[in-house]
Amino acid sequence: MARQLYELTGADPTRRFSPFCWRARMALAHKGLEAECIPWRFTETDRLAFAHHDKVPVLVDGDTVVPESWDIAAYLDRAYPDRPPLLGVAEPQIRFIAAWTDTIMHPALVRLVVSDIVTLLDPPAAAYFRASREARLGASLESVTADREGRLPAFRALLQPLRIALRATPFLGGAAPDYADYTVFGAFQWARVVSPLPLIEDTDPVHPWLERLLDRFDGLARAVPARG
Amino acid sequence: MARQLYELTGADPTRRFSPFCWRARMALAHKGLEAECIPWRFTETDRLAFAHHDKVPVLVDGDTVVPESWDIAAYLDRAYPDRPPLLGVAEPQIRFIAAWTDTIMHPALVRLVVSDIVTLLDPPAAAYFRASREARLGASLESVTADREGRLPAFRALLQPLRIALRATPFLGGAAPDYADYTVFGAFQWARVVSPLPLIEDTDPVHPWLERLLDRFDGLARAVPARG
Repeated sequence: MARQLYELTGADPTRRFSPFCWRARMALAHKGLEAECIPWRFTETDRLAFAHHDKVPVLVDGDTVVPESWDIAAYLDRAYPDRPPLLGVAEPQIRFIAAWTDTIMHPALVRLVVSDIVTLLDPPAAAYFRASREARLGASLESVTADREGRLPAFRALLQPLRIALRATPFLGGAAPDYADYTVFGAFQWARVVSPLPLIEDTDPVHPWLERLLDRFDGLARAVPARG
Repeated sequence: MARQLYELTGADPTRRFSPFCWRARMALAHKGLEAECIPWRFTETDRLAFAHHDKVPVLVDGDTVVPESWDIAAYLDRAYPDRPPLLGVAEPQIRFIAAWTDTIMHPALVRLVVSDIVTLLDPPAAAYFRASREARLGASLESVTADREGRLPAFRALLQPLRIALRATPFLGGAAPDYADYTVFGAFQWARVVSPLPLIEDTDPVHPWLERLLDRFDGLARAVPARG
Protein backbone atom coordinates (compact mmCIF):
# COMPACT_ATOMS: atom_id res chain seq x y z
CA MET A 1 0.00 0.00 0.00
CA ALA A 2 1.42 3.37 -0.99
CA ARG A 3 2.12 5.72 1.89
CA GLN A 4 3.45 9.20 1.20
CA LEU A 5 4.20 12.25 3.31
CA TYR A 6 4.37 15.64 1.61
CA GLU A 7 7.15 17.52 3.40
CA LEU A 8 8.45 21.06 3.08
CA THR A 9 11.99 21.23 1.73
CA GLY A 10 14.47 23.82 0.62
CA ALA A 11 15.91 23.93 -2.89
CA ASP A 12 17.75 20.76 -1.79
CA PRO A 13 14.97 18.15 -1.46
CA THR A 14 16.77 16.38 1.42
CA ARG A 15 16.72 19.56 3.52
CA ARG A 16 13.38 19.00 5.25
CA PHE A 17 12.86 21.82 7.74
CA SER A 18 9.21 22.31 8.68
CA PRO A 19 8.54 21.79 12.40
CA PHE A 20 5.05 20.49 11.60
CA CYS A 21 6.36 18.03 9.00
CA TRP A 22 8.89 16.75 11.56
CA ARG A 23 6.03 16.09 13.98
CA ALA A 24 4.38 13.94 11.33
CA ARG A 25 7.61 12.21 10.25
CA MET A 26 8.53 11.32 13.85
CA ALA A 27 4.93 10.20 14.47
CA LEU A 28 5.12 7.80 11.52
CA ALA A 29 8.43 6.42 12.81
CA HIS A 30 6.96 6.04 16.30
CA LYS A 31 4.29 3.82 14.76
CA GLY A 32 6.94 1.90 12.83
CA LEU A 33 5.51 3.09 9.50
CA GLU A 34 7.45 3.89 6.36
CA ALA A 35 6.32 6.72 4.11
CA GLU A 36 7.88 8.03 0.93
CA CYS A 37 8.91 11.68 1.25
CA ILE A 38 7.31 13.87 -1.40
CA PRO A 39 9.33 17.11 -1.39
CA TRP A 40 7.12 20.17 -1.49
CA ARG A 41 8.04 23.85 -1.73
CA PHE A 42 6.23 26.97 -0.55
CA THR A 43 4.88 27.98 -3.96
CA GLU A 44 3.48 24.59 -4.97
CA THR A 45 -0.05 24.94 -3.61
CA ASP A 46 -1.50 23.43 -6.81
CA ARG A 47 0.17 20.12 -5.96
CA LEU A 48 -1.90 19.93 -2.74
CA ALA A 49 -5.27 20.56 -4.46
CA PHE A 50 -6.10 16.83 -4.12
CA ALA A 51 -5.99 17.33 -0.31
CA HIS A 52 -8.17 20.46 -0.39
CA HIS A 53 -5.42 22.08 1.64
CA ASP A 54 -2.61 24.56 1.03
CA LYS A 55 0.03 23.53 3.55
CA VAL A 56 2.15 20.53 4.47
CA PRO A 57 2.37 18.02 6.03
CA VAL A 58 -0.18 16.02 4.10
CA LEU A 59 -0.23 12.27 4.66
CA VAL A 60 -1.50 9.94 1.97
CA ASP A 61 -2.14 6.46 3.37
CA GLY A 62 -3.71 4.30 0.69
CA ASP A 63 -7.05 5.94 -0.02
CA THR A 64 -6.91 8.23 3.00
CA VAL A 65 -5.65 11.81 2.76
CA VAL A 66 -4.89 13.61 6.04
CA PRO A 67 -3.59 17.21 6.21
CA GLU A 68 -2.39 18.90 9.45
CA SER A 69 0.16 17.38 11.82
CA TRP A 70 -2.19 17.01 14.82
CA ASP A 71 -4.82 15.28 12.69
CA ILE A 72 -2.14 12.98 11.26
CA ALA A 73 -1.17 11.88 14.79
CA ALA A 74 -4.82 11.30 15.73
CA TYR A 75 -5.38 9.40 12.47
CA LEU A 76 -2.35 7.17 13.05
CA ASP A 77 -3.60 6.28 16.55
CA ARG A 78 -7.03 5.41 15.10
CA ALA A 79 -5.76 3.52 12.06
CA TYR A 80 -2.96 1.64 13.85
CA PRO A 81 -4.31 1.04 17.37
CA ASP A 82 -1.99 -1.95 17.97
CA ARG A 83 1.14 0.20 17.68
CA PRO A 84 2.40 2.38 20.56
CA PRO A 85 0.04 5.34 21.06
CA LEU A 86 1.13 8.85 20.09
CA LEU A 87 -1.58 10.74 21.97
CA GLY A 88 -3.30 8.02 23.94
CA VAL A 89 -5.00 8.94 27.20
CA ALA A 90 -2.82 12.05 27.66
CA GLU A 91 -4.27 13.68 24.51
CA PRO A 92 -5.79 16.71 26.34
CA GLN A 93 -2.55 17.47 28.17
CA ILE A 94 -0.48 16.98 25.00
CA ARG A 95 -2.76 19.50 23.30
CA PHE A 96 -1.63 22.08 25.88
CA ILE A 97 2.04 21.29 25.18
CA ALA A 98 1.41 21.57 21.43
CA ALA A 99 -0.33 24.92 21.95
CA TRP A 100 2.63 26.12 24.04
CA THR A 101 4.98 25.09 21.22
CA ASP A 102 2.88 26.86 18.60
CA THR A 103 2.23 30.09 20.51
CA ILE A 104 5.38 30.55 22.61
CA MET A 105 8.28 28.62 21.07
CA HIS A 106 7.55 29.11 17.38
CA PRO A 107 7.11 32.91 17.43
CA ALA A 108 10.32 33.25 19.48
CA LEU A 109 12.19 30.95 17.07
CA VAL A 110 10.96 32.84 14.01
CA ARG A 111 12.67 35.94 15.37
CA LEU A 112 15.91 33.99 15.82
CA VAL A 113 16.17 32.09 12.50
CA VAL A 114 13.87 33.59 9.88
CA SER A 115 16.68 35.22 7.89
CA ASP A 116 18.43 31.84 7.59
CA ILE A 117 15.37 30.12 6.13
CA VAL A 118 15.25 32.27 3.02
CA THR A 119 18.79 31.26 2.05
CA LEU A 120 17.73 27.58 1.78
CA LEU A 121 14.96 28.20 -0.74
CA ASP A 122 14.84 28.16 -4.53
CA PRO A 123 14.22 31.59 -6.12
CA PRO A 124 10.40 31.46 -6.41
CA ALA A 125 10.00 30.10 -2.86
CA ALA A 126 12.51 32.63 -1.53
CA ALA A 127 10.59 35.50 -3.13
CA TYR A 128 7.29 34.26 -1.71
CA PHE A 129 8.78 33.65 1.73
CA ARG A 130 10.47 37.03 1.96
CA ALA A 131 7.40 38.96 0.85
CA SER A 132 4.93 37.11 3.09
CA ARG A 133 7.12 37.05 6.21
CA GLU A 134 8.30 40.64 5.90
CA ALA A 135 4.66 41.74 5.63
CA ARG A 136 3.76 39.69 8.71
CA LEU A 137 6.77 40.84 10.76
CA GLY A 138 6.70 44.43 9.56
CA ALA A 139 10.47 44.46 8.97
CA SER A 140 13.13 42.95 6.74
CA LEU A 141 14.10 39.39 7.68
CA GLU A 142 17.65 40.51 8.32
CA SER A 143 16.63 43.29 10.70
CA VAL A 144 14.39 40.87 12.64
CA THR A 145 17.36 38.62 13.45
CA ALA A 146 20.03 41.35 13.67
CA ASP A 147 20.39 41.23 17.48
CA ARG A 148 19.57 37.55 17.88
CA GLU A 149 22.57 36.57 20.02
CA GLY A 150 21.38 39.11 22.58
CA ARG A 151 17.94 37.50 22.68
CA LEU A 152 19.19 33.95 23.25
CA PRO A 153 19.02 34.21 27.09
CA ALA A 154 15.35 35.26 26.90
CA PHE A 155 14.63 32.37 24.53
CA ARG A 156 16.37 29.91 26.84
CA ALA A 157 14.33 31.23 29.79
CA LEU A 158 11.13 30.41 27.88
CA LEU A 159 12.19 26.75 27.89
CA GLN A 160 11.98 26.49 31.69
CA PRO A 161 8.78 24.36 31.73
CA LEU A 162 10.48 21.87 29.38
CA ARG A 163 13.63 21.85 31.52
CA ILE A 164 11.71 21.21 34.75
CA ALA A 165 9.55 18.47 33.21
CA LEU A 166 12.68 16.69 31.93
CA ARG A 167 14.18 16.62 35.44
CA ALA A 168 11.69 13.93 36.38
CA THR A 169 11.51 11.72 33.29
CA PRO A 170 13.74 11.20 30.22
CA PHE A 171 10.94 12.27 27.86
CA LEU A 172 7.84 14.48 28.11
CA GLY A 173 5.93 11.24 27.54
CA GLY A 174 7.68 9.62 30.53
CA ALA A 175 10.05 6.68 30.04
CA ALA A 176 9.47 6.77 26.27
CA PRO A 177 8.67 9.66 23.92
CA ASP A 178 5.15 10.43 22.76
CA TYR A 179 3.63 13.12 20.56
CA ALA A 180 4.44 15.81 23.16
CA ASP A 181 8.13 15.11 22.61
CA TYR A 182 7.87 15.09 18.82
CA THR A 183 5.98 18.39 18.89
CA VAL A 184 8.59 20.27 20.91
CA PHE A 185 11.39 18.44 19.11
CA GLY A 186 10.02 19.61 15.75
CA ALA A 187 10.73 23.19 16.75
CA PHE A 188 14.35 22.40 17.65
CA GLN A 189 14.84 20.35 14.49
CA TRP A 190 13.49 23.23 12.39
CA ALA A 191 16.06 25.58 13.92
CA ARG A 192 18.83 22.97 13.63
CA VAL A 193 18.24 22.39 9.91
CA VAL A 194 17.91 26.06 8.93
CA SER A 195 20.30 27.94 11.20
CA PRO A 196 23.82 27.76 12.62
CA LEU A 197 22.67 29.63 15.75
CA PRO A 198 23.38 27.54 18.88
CA LEU A 199 19.94 27.63 20.51
CA ILE A 200 20.86 25.91 23.75
CA GLU A 201 24.09 25.35 25.61
CA ASP A 202 25.65 21.88 25.86
CA THR A 203 25.17 22.02 29.64
CA ASP A 204 21.43 22.68 29.34
CA PRO A 205 19.34 19.77 30.70
CA VAL A 206 17.35 20.06 27.46
CA HIS A 207 20.45 19.04 25.49
CA PRO A 208 20.55 15.30 26.34
CA TRP A 209 16.82 15.02 25.63
CA LEU A 210 17.39 16.56 22.21
CA GLU A 211 20.28 14.16 21.54
CA ARG A 212 18.08 11.19 22.48
CA LEU A 213 15.47 12.29 19.96
CA LEU A 214 18.07 12.89 17.25
CA ASP A 215 19.29 9.31 17.86
CA ARG A 216 15.79 7.84 17.84
CA PHE A 217 14.68 5.62 14.94
CA ASP A 218 18.27 4.95 13.81
CA GLY A 219 19.08 8.63 13.70
CA LEU A 220 16.17 9.58 11.43
CA ALA A 221 16.29 13.29 12.34
CA ARG A 222 20.08 13.47 12.61
CA ALA A 223 20.35 12.22 9.01
CA VAL A 224 19.49 15.75 7.90
CA PRO A 225 22.70 17.57 8.78
CA ALA A 226 22.71 20.61 11.04
CA ARG A 227 23.31 23.90 9.24
CA GLY A 228 26.99 24.70 9.71
CA MET B 1 -8.91 9.19 61.18
CA ALA B 2 -7.77 12.79 61.52
CA ARG B 3 -6.96 14.51 58.23
CA GLN B 4 -5.69 18.06 58.25
CA LEU B 5 -4.42 20.48 55.62
CA TYR B 6 -2.26 23.40 56.70
CA GLU B 7 -3.27 26.29 54.45
CA LEU B 8 -1.96 29.83 54.09
CA THR B 9 -4.47 32.47 55.15
CA GLY B 10 -4.62 36.19 55.66
CA ALA B 11 -5.44 37.79 59.01
CA ASP B 12 -8.95 36.43 58.34
CA PRO B 13 -8.54 32.64 58.63
CA THR B 14 -11.21 31.99 55.98
CA ARG B 15 -9.25 33.98 53.37
CA ARG B 16 -7.16 31.10 51.97
CA PHE B 17 -5.12 32.45 49.09
CA SER B 18 -2.07 30.30 48.33
CA PRO B 19 -2.11 28.85 44.80
CA PHE B 20 -0.24 25.77 46.02
CA CYS B 21 -2.68 25.22 48.90
CA TRP B 22 -5.57 25.45 46.45
CA ARG B 23 -3.96 22.72 44.34
CA ALA B 24 -3.94 20.49 47.44
CA ARG B 25 -7.45 21.48 48.58
CA MET B 26 -8.94 20.78 45.13
CA ALA B 27 -6.95 17.52 44.94
CA LEU B 28 -8.48 16.35 48.23
CA ALA B 29 -11.96 17.24 47.00
CA HIS B 30 -11.31 15.42 43.69
CA LYS B 31 -10.60 12.30 45.77
CA GLY B 32 -13.75 12.90 47.83
CA LEU B 33 -11.70 13.43 50.99
CA GLU B 34 -12.48 15.82 53.82
CA ALA B 35 -9.64 17.58 55.62
CA GLU B 36 -9.80 20.09 58.44
CA CYS B 37 -8.25 23.44 57.43
CA ILE B 38 -5.46 24.49 59.79
CA PRO B 39 -4.91 28.19 59.08
CA TRP B 40 -1.25 29.08 58.82
CA ARG B 41 0.43 32.46 58.37
CA PHE B 42 3.75 33.40 56.80
CA THR B 43 5.65 33.89 60.08
CA GLU B 44 4.59 30.63 61.73
CA THR B 45 7.43 28.37 60.57
CA ASP B 46 7.74 26.85 64.06
CA ARG B 47 4.30 25.31 63.69
CA LEU B 48 5.56 23.30 60.69
CA ALA B 49 8.61 21.89 62.47
CA PHE B 50 6.84 18.52 62.80
CA ALA B 51 6.84 18.30 58.99
CA HIS B 52 10.52 19.27 58.68
CA HIS B 53 9.35 21.90 56.24
CA ASP B 54 8.84 25.66 56.23
CA LYS B 55 6.01 26.16 53.76
CA VAL B 56 2.42 25.12 53.21
CA PRO B 57 0.54 23.15 52.09
CA VAL B 58 1.31 20.33 54.50
CA LEU B 59 -1.10 17.40 54.58
CA VAL B 60 -1.48 15.29 57.71
CA ASP B 61 -3.31 12.06 56.94
CA GLY B 62 -3.35 9.88 60.04
CA ASP B 63 0.30 9.07 60.69
CA THR B 64 1.47 10.36 57.32
CA VAL B 65 2.84 13.89 56.86
CA VAL B 66 3.23 15.17 53.29
CA PRO B 67 4.55 18.66 52.44
CA GLU B 68 4.54 20.14 48.90
CA SER B 69 1.48 20.26 46.65
CA TRP B 70 2.85 17.96 43.91
CA ASP B 71 3.86 15.34 46.46
CA ILE B 72 0.42 15.58 48.08
CA ALA B 73 -1.24 14.80 44.73
CA ALA B 74 1.12 11.86 44.13
CA TYR B 75 0.51 10.63 47.70
CA LEU B 76 -3.27 10.81 47.31
CA ASP B 77 -3.10 8.76 44.10
CA ARG B 78 -0.96 6.13 45.88
CA ALA B 79 -2.97 6.07 49.11
CA TYR B 80 -6.42 6.17 47.49
CA PRO B 81 -5.99 4.25 44.22
CA ASP B 82 -9.70 3.42 43.98
CA ARG B 83 -10.71 7.08 43.71
CA PRO B 84 -10.43 9.03 40.42
CA PRO B 85 -6.76 9.64 39.59
CA LEU B 86 -5.27 13.12 39.88
CA LEU B 87 -2.09 12.47 37.90
CA GLY B 88 -2.63 8.98 36.53
CA VAL B 89 -0.94 8.04 33.28
CA ALA B 90 -0.65 11.68 32.16
CA GLU B 91 1.70 12.49 35.07
CA PRO B 92 4.70 13.47 32.87
CA GLN B 93 2.61 15.80 30.71
CA ILE B 94 0.91 17.32 33.78
CA ARG B 95 4.38 18.01 35.17
CA PHE B 96 5.01 20.24 32.13
CA ILE B 97 1.74 22.13 32.72
CA ALA B 98 2.64 22.58 36.41
CA ALA B 99 6.09 23.86 35.44
CA TRP B 100 4.48 26.31 33.01
CA THR B 101 2.19 27.53 35.79
CA ASP B 102 5.11 27.94 38.20
CA THR B 103 7.56 29.61 35.83
CA ILE B 104 5.32 31.62 33.48
CA MET B 105 1.95 32.30 35.13
CA HIS B 106 3.06 32.84 38.72
CA PRO B 107 5.83 35.38 38.07
CA ALA B 108 3.49 37.34 35.79
CA LEU B 109 0.72 37.24 38.42
CA VAL B 110 3.05 38.39 41.20
CA ARG B 111 3.67 41.57 39.22
CA LEU B 112 -0.08 42.12 38.89
CA VAL B 113 -1.30 41.44 42.45
CA VAL B 114 1.58 41.52 44.94
CA SER B 115 0.60 44.88 46.45
CA ASP B 116 -2.89 43.53 47.19
CA ILE B 117 -1.58 40.53 49.12
CA VAL B 118 0.10 42.59 51.81
CA THR B 119 -3.20 44.27 52.72
CA LEU B 120 -4.74 40.89 53.67
CA LEU B 121 -2.08 40.00 56.22
CA ASP B 122 -1.80 40.54 59.97
CA PRO B 123 0.99 42.97 60.99
CA PRO B 124 3.85 40.46 61.56
CA ALA B 125 3.05 38.58 58.33
CA ALA B 126 2.69 41.86 56.41
CA ALA B 127 6.10 43.05 57.64
CA TYR B 128 7.74 39.75 56.65
CA PHE B 129 5.99 39.66 53.29
CA ARG B 130 6.86 43.24 52.36
CA ALA B 131 10.53 42.89 53.32
CA SER B 132 11.08 39.53 51.60
CA ARG B 133 9.18 40.37 48.40
CA GLU B 134 10.61 43.86 48.02
CA ALA B 135 14.12 42.38 48.35
CA ARG B 136 13.29 39.75 45.71
CA LEU B 137 11.61 42.19 43.32
CA GLY B 138 14.06 45.06 43.90
CA ALA B 139 11.24 47.59 44.21
CA SER B 140 8.36 48.57 46.50
CA LEU B 141 5.26 46.37 46.10
CA GLU B 142 3.25 49.40 45.06
CA SER B 143 5.67 50.40 42.31
CA VAL B 144 5.71 46.82 40.95
CA THR B 145 1.96 46.92 40.35
CA ALA B 146 1.66 50.63 39.50
CA ASP B 147 1.08 50.12 35.75
CA ARG B 148 -0.70 46.79 36.03
CA GLU B 149 -3.75 47.63 33.91
CA GLY B 150 -1.36 48.33 31.05
CA ARG B 151 0.22 44.89 31.44
CA LEU B 152 -3.05 42.94 31.37
CA PRO B 153 -3.00 42.38 27.58
CA ALA B 154 0.49 40.83 27.82
CA PHE B 155 -0.68 38.61 30.69
CA ARG B 156 -3.73 37.51 28.72
CA ALA B 157 -1.50 36.67 25.73
CA LEU B 158 0.51 34.33 27.95
CA LEU B 159 -2.64 32.28 28.49
CA GLN B 160 -2.89 31.31 24.82
CA PRO B 161 -1.82 27.66 25.35
CA LEU B 162 -4.58 27.29 27.97
CA ARG B 163 -7.13 28.94 25.67
CA ILE B 164 -6.27 26.67 22.72
CA ALA B 165 -6.29 23.50 24.83
CA LEU B 166 -9.75 24.40 26.19
CA ARG B 167 -11.15 24.73 22.66
CA ALA B 168 -11.04 20.95 22.35
CA THR B 169 -12.15 19.71 25.77
CA PRO B 170 -14.00 21.27 28.74
CA PHE B 171 -11.02 20.68 31.05
CA LEU B 172 -7.25 20.29 30.63
CA GLY B 173 -7.84 16.73 31.87
CA GLY B 174 -10.40 16.15 29.09
CA ALA B 175 -14.09 15.56 29.91
CA ALA B 176 -13.35 15.89 33.64
CA PRO B 177 -10.73 17.93 35.51
CA ASP B 178 -7.48 16.44 36.75
CA TYR B 179 -4.44 17.84 38.55
CA ALA B 180 -3.49 19.93 35.50
CA ASP B 181 -6.73 21.87 35.91
CA TYR B 182 -6.30 22.34 39.67
CA THR B 183 -2.74 23.56 39.14
CA VAL B 184 -3.65 26.31 36.68
CA PHE B 185 -6.86 27.05 38.59
CA GLY B 186 -4.85 27.60 41.78
CA ALA B 187 -3.14 30.57 40.14
CA PHE B 188 -6.47 32.15 39.15
CA GLN B 189 -7.98 31.48 42.58
CA TRP B 190 -4.96 33.11 44.25
CA ALA B 191 -5.49 36.26 42.18
CA ARG B 192 -9.27 36.15 42.73
CA VAL B 193 -8.97 35.98 46.53
CA VAL B 194 -6.30 38.66 46.89
CA SER B 195 -7.04 41.21 44.19
CA PRO B 196 -9.93 43.12 42.59
CA LEU B 197 -8.03 43.24 39.27
CA PRO B 198 -10.12 41.61 36.49
CA LEU B 199 -7.53 39.18 35.10
CA ILE B 200 -9.55 37.95 32.15
CA GLU B 201 -12.48 39.28 30.21
CA ASP B 202 -15.91 37.65 30.46
CA THR B 203 -15.69 36.81 26.76
CA ASP B 204 -12.40 34.94 27.18
CA PRO B 205 -12.77 31.19 26.46
CA VAL B 206 -10.86 30.68 29.71
CA HIS B 207 -13.77 32.25 31.63
CA PRO B 208 -16.30 29.38 31.41
CA TRP B 209 -13.59 26.88 32.41
CA LEU B 210 -12.83 28.98 35.47
CA GLU B 211 -16.53 29.17 36.33
CA ARG B 212 -16.83 25.38 36.05
CA LEU B 213 -13.98 24.94 38.52
CA LEU B 214 -15.42 27.52 40.92
CA ASP B 215 -18.68 25.54 40.85
CA ARG B 216 -16.96 22.19 41.34
CA PHE B 217 -17.37 20.31 44.61
CA ASP B 218 -20.47 22.30 45.63
CA GLY B 219 -18.71 25.60 45.06
CA LEU B 220 -15.74 24.83 47.32
CA ALA B 221 -13.50 27.51 45.80
CA ARG B 222 -16.30 30.03 45.24
CA ALA B 223 -17.07 29.90 48.99
CA VAL B 224 -14.06 32.15 49.53
CA PRO B 225 -15.40 35.45 48.15
CA ALA B 226 -13.59 37.32 45.42
CA ARG B 227 -11.82 40.48 46.60
CA GLY B 228 -14.12 43.35 45.79
